[in-house]
Amino acid sequence: MPRRRDSSLPRVVIEDVGPAVDAGRHPIKRALGTTVHVSAAIFKDGHDTIRARLLVKRPEAGADEAWRAIPLHYQFNPDRWYASFVAETLGRWQYAVEAWPDAYGSWQSDLGKRIAAGQNVAPELLEGAVLLERAARRARAAAKRKLAAAARLLAGKEKASIEARIECALDPALLAIIDFPLEEAERTRSDAFEIIVDRDVASFGAWYEMFPRSQTNDPSKHGTFADAAGRLPDLADLGFDVIYLPPIHPIGRTHRKGPNNSRTSSPGDVGSPWAIGAAEGGHTAVHPDLGTLAAFEAFVRKAHDNGMEVALDFALQCSPDHPWVSEHPDWFFRRPDGSIHYAENPPKKYEDIYPLNFWCDDRQGLWEACRDILLFWIDCGVKIFRVDNPHTKPFAFWEWCLAEVQARHPDTVFLAEAFTRPNRMKALAKLGFNQSYTYFTWKNSKWELKELMTDLAHSDMAEYYRPNFFANTPDILHEYLQRGGRAAFRVRLLLAATLSPIYGIYSGFEICENVPVREGSEEYLNSEKYQLRVRDWNAPGNIRDDIRSINRLRRGHPALRRLANLEILDVANDQVFCFRKWAEGDELLCVVNLDPHQVQEAIVPAPLEKLGLSADAPFPVKDLLTGERYTWRGRDNYV
Amino acid sequence: MPRRRDSSLPRVVIEDVGPAVDAGRHPIKRALGTTVHVSAAIFKDGHDTIRARLLVKRPEAGADEAWRAIPLHYQFNPDRWYASFVAETLGRWQYAVEAWPDAYGSWQSDLGKRIAAGQNVAPELLEGAVLLERAARRARAAAKRKLAAAARLLAGKEKASIEARIECALDPALLAIIDFPLEEAERTRSDAFEIIVDRDVASFGAWYEMFPRSQTNDPSKHGTFADAAGRLPDLADLGFDVIYLPPIHPIGRTHRKGPNNSRTSSPGDVGSPWAIGAAEGGHTAVHPDLGTLAAFEAFVRKAHDNGMEVALDFALQCSPDHPWVSEHPDWFFRRPDGSIHYAENPPKKYEDIYPLNFWCDDRQGLWEACRDILLFWIDCGVKIFRVDNPHTKPFAFWEWCLAEVQARHPDTVFLAEAFTRPNRMKALAKLGFNQSYTYFTWKNSKWELKELMTDLAHSDMAEYYRPNFFANTPDILHEYLQRGGRAAFRVRLLLAATLSPIYGIYSGFEICENVPVREGSEEYLNSEKYQLRVRDWNAPGNIRDDIRSINRLRRGHPALRRLANLEILDVANDQVFCFRKWAEGDELLCVVNLDPHQVQEAIVPAPLEKLGLSADAPFPVKDLLTGERYTWRGRDNYV
Repeated sequence: MPRRRDSSLPRVVIEDVGPAVDAGRHPIKRALGTTVHVSAAIFKDGHDTIRARLLVKRPEAGADEAWRAIPLHYQFNPDRWYASFVAETLGRWQYAVEAWPDAYGSWQSDLGKRIAAGQNVAPELLEGAVLLERAARRARAAAKRKLAAAARLLAGKEKASIEARIECALDPALLAIIDFPLEEAERTRSDAFEIIVDRDVASFGAWYEMFPRSQTNDPSKHGTFADAAGRLPDLADLGFDVIYLPPIHPIGRTHRKGPNNSRTSSPGDVGSPWAIGAAEGGHTAVHPDLGTLAAFEAFVRKAHDNGMEVALDFALQCSPDHPWVSEHPDWFFRRPDGSIHYAENPPKKYEDIYPLNFWCDDRQGLWEACRDILLFWIDCGVKIFRVDNPHTKPFAFWEWCLAEVQARHPDTVFLAEAFTRPNRMKALAKLGFNQSYTYFTWKNSKWELKELMTDLAHSDMAEYYRPNFFANTPDILHEYLQRGGRAAFRVRLLLAATLSPIYGIYSGFEICENVPVREGSEEYLNSEKYQLRVRDWNAPGNIRDDIRSINRLRRGHPALRRLANLEILDVANDQVFCFRKWAEGDELLCVVNLDPHQVQEAIVPAPLEKLGLSADAPFPVKDLLTGERYTWRGRDNYV
Repeated sequence: MPRRRDSSLPRVVIEDVGPAVDAGRHPIKRALGTTVHVSAAIFKDGHDTIRARLLVKRPEAGADEAWRAIPLHYQFNPDRWYASFVAETLGRWQYAVEAWPDAYGSWQSDLGKRIAAGQNVAPELLEGAVLLERAARRARAAAKRKLAAAARLLAGKEKASIEARIECALDPALLAIIDFPLEEAERTRSDAFEIIVDRDVASFGAWYEMFPRSQTNDPSKHGTFADAAGRLPDLADLGFDVIYLPPIHPIGRTHRKGPNNSRTSSPGDVGSPWAIGAAEGGHTAVHPDLGTLAAFEAFVRKAHDNGMEVALDFALQCSPDHPWVSEHPDWFFRRPDGSIHYAENPPKKYEDIYPLNFWCDDRQGLWEACRDILLFWIDCGVKIFRVDNPHTKPFAFWEWCLAEVQARHPDTVFLAEAFTRPNRMKALAKLGFNQSYTYFTWKNSKWELKELMTDLAHSDMAEYYRPNFFANTPDILHEYLQRGGRAAFRVRLLLAATLSPIYGIYSGFEICENVPVREGSEEYLNSEKYQLRVRDWNAPGNIRDDIRSINRLRRGHPALRRLANLEILDVANDQVFCFRKWAEGDELLCVVNLDPHQVQEAIVPAPLEKLGLSADAPFPVKDLLTGERYTWRGRDNYV
């Protein structure tokens, strides 16, 4: 039956409570310490005034625990009620709105109008007394006594002049005491809405992706966690916040892929880290060539010591050699002959991968085992997970799994790596993923960027979808980078790092690696997905200085920590993308030449009205990348 | 707790089902016979295909009765599923969407791809056989036998070539039979959504408001239903659909208002029809001077005979002489001394009116009595009610009352006369009012009209809020009409009748009555709210021919029966309002000179692309008011 068929008869109507996603079906997201602004349309019939309050429940509160109440305040225009609170604890908060007719407040307001009109209000005082008596019956202790005393005074039961009785009747203190409805049935409460409050790093951060096995100076040597740890001070100096590692587990040998994704491998080939599991162990084991679990924990500690965090890949799939294949064959898809299905997207076959059957008979056992993998790595100090292809596992699984983990560890952060149809990418974010990949890598023209940013920053996606703008990935070397040379890398770095509060690069970007495996492909030549790669991170033409500058800028400018504060400005030149970001005391104008091949010029509009500047006043402008200072005047300025 | 905390684990995600108001909290509205188009975002993880269907339940269906199922069809762009049905019964319909993974369909599709790639599919056929066996277990009778036979064939248990087995496996007929999930748990169903299906007259009609007591030729004579009936053939000829009468009940004598709302009345004064109730009876009685109940019923019959309906006023308030005051003093607000409160909006007093206390101890008795008034008049043949000031009675009352009445009489239509803040006007429409007054009377400039129409036609209001554009009312004679002369009346008539499918005039409009009670007031001089008025309906300068023409146009043009089909066109002249309305085979362009004082000219843009016309092709245009024909050419045409 439709939801409207409840038996309650609300005195007050509460509608359009927000912020909310899909009318409250899904939680919104806020970073720790954020002020959450709540508003609602609240009204009733007639002229009576209303009392309304915001109810807030912290994550650790039990079901019976009291809600914290915060008064809602009315704004005539746009006829809504407002309140806010600071989300100062991690986890899933709840909020609701409740309201009731303000019987005494309405009467008090009417009394004022009658007195102003010179009416005899003696009869009205008796009615006020009745209201106060009713309030006294529902109040506690001291309040009860005060209200009863006021009721007697209004009713003329004490020796008091009419002036004294009126003064008492109009006392604002009475209204403050009566912060409840005169009858419980007069109270209307909205549904409860949820907020995921997560750490700052869930909504702001610069990511660096690297394969630990490639972090040596010797192409014949398999890198270790110790090698990778050697790079951490430099990455910290460049200003990165999160170091993301592809899977670090033992790699399957059956049908192992060779270099450049060839279907056959030679004995020395290292294989793809995403073919998880071998005799040495599965998702909770460490690849022996990388080192021990202790070495990994040391790597995590060293990252922390350098002010960074480590993100692990969470790829729920198994190589044919994964221990689960023999321990839990029932967790996989099986053919009528009992053999296990490898992955397929007919007619393509992926014989090195066995997908999991999330709806197998032992569903609960499998789901809990998946959850326990996360809990294992959390115990090792990892709090950020980049989830591989979540859209190929059930949405219901993610809703369950993320809630399970975050109920225990609300400081955990999940990044969804789903490149699929928008409905599914949005659904994953709605179900709890703290941040998400986007199609940013493929948006290189001005109109594409404008369309992407309008969706992300100015639709309801801003309430739940936090983009992580990776400028490249091991799978995506866009043609723009392949052909645009060093300038293209600088442009994309600037766009990623300023448009989105969260962005990342995959190693090789800083030295402008741009050779595809073949013409027309977005895969890298000699991709380290399938082999070891050794690079000179200080190779000529590197853009390390740009990265360092931009990451420093990001940390210093609150405007770059937010997404919805974006305003795209009109510029006549189609190769020039110009936008504004602002925060309290921080005004940024970003002008990006999208053309990697030549200098472009444009007249850039300064948002004078929003800055409170007159049309021809000069104002100082600082180029934050070069440090140079200029004086601009008026709206249109040449760049 | 938030609504997301259900224990189900949906295999398929169903989101954004529409049309819906406030995510399904309130019903949408459709006129009888309308095709209802439903769509939803439906998706799951991975590559499997999905089966989805729309479920529809007719109003008379019991709770246990089966839903009618209509297949939903997928459109890749914009990644949504669509279906429709015709709402061919009055009342509250329900619809829902359900979906499940299409196990056999997915397998069949994969099989096709494998065969196209030349793969050996013998092992796959065994898996298809397993799926068919599972389907056979859940199918009935003939389908069960067919599926089991196909399963045996696929499994190689019959003598059949591989080609024959493949042909059977790919048979589309199998897919048609398996119109259910292989396990019940795989089925996901959306919430149910409601649709109010009401009569055509709820969404289309020309209204005429008249006071029956004024329908004589003799200012000293109180008019009767018989007098009023005498006007019906003429009003039918003018093309009206609904004749709306202010309250026809006995009028209170205590504190009766005199002419022009004076606080004292003389013995011969007739009083305001909205001061309902006297010794002769209350809301179910007829004013003796108007005639008997039988005379009223005769009036209703004559209206029907002339192809029209009668709408009554439903004003839930009482004069001090109303029978309820003595029979049910507990239904009113009482002072501590037991006396009954008259209406007030401090410091203003309305001593001729006693408001009802909808939350009195006998709430149920009062609410049922109010409902029974409606049932009484429905028995007399009235099916349309114009509800006076519904926003001064509880919203919960209206939700209950309208549902109660329409469950018994789904052909009843309610018009909300609420001039209040937008949230409250919208809420009444959401709770069930079939149509609503608007601020149209006060929207006379181009930008005001544009703003109003954008809200009504192009926001979600179009799903539930049906405007009734009264061009004047007994309370509203706008300054535009007071000062604009006959031209102003013609402009407002044209706007009301073409912008909104439902519109109305209050009598006097057709003879351009425009004298206010005083400068700056919107009240009429000598308003018939307080006295009898006699007019010459054929007085010189009347606009009866315009009314007749426009009402004829309205009936002949499907484009004028719809609201959301409005497109406002840009015209450089601020005094010229130009819009387009279209329907299948009906293309209207309306150009209105908003300036009642002088001729205006404009270049009007023809929507060439939408008409499929080339940029310089000539095309015929007919002036529907004069009957003249022109030939236009290209986009810009002079008017």
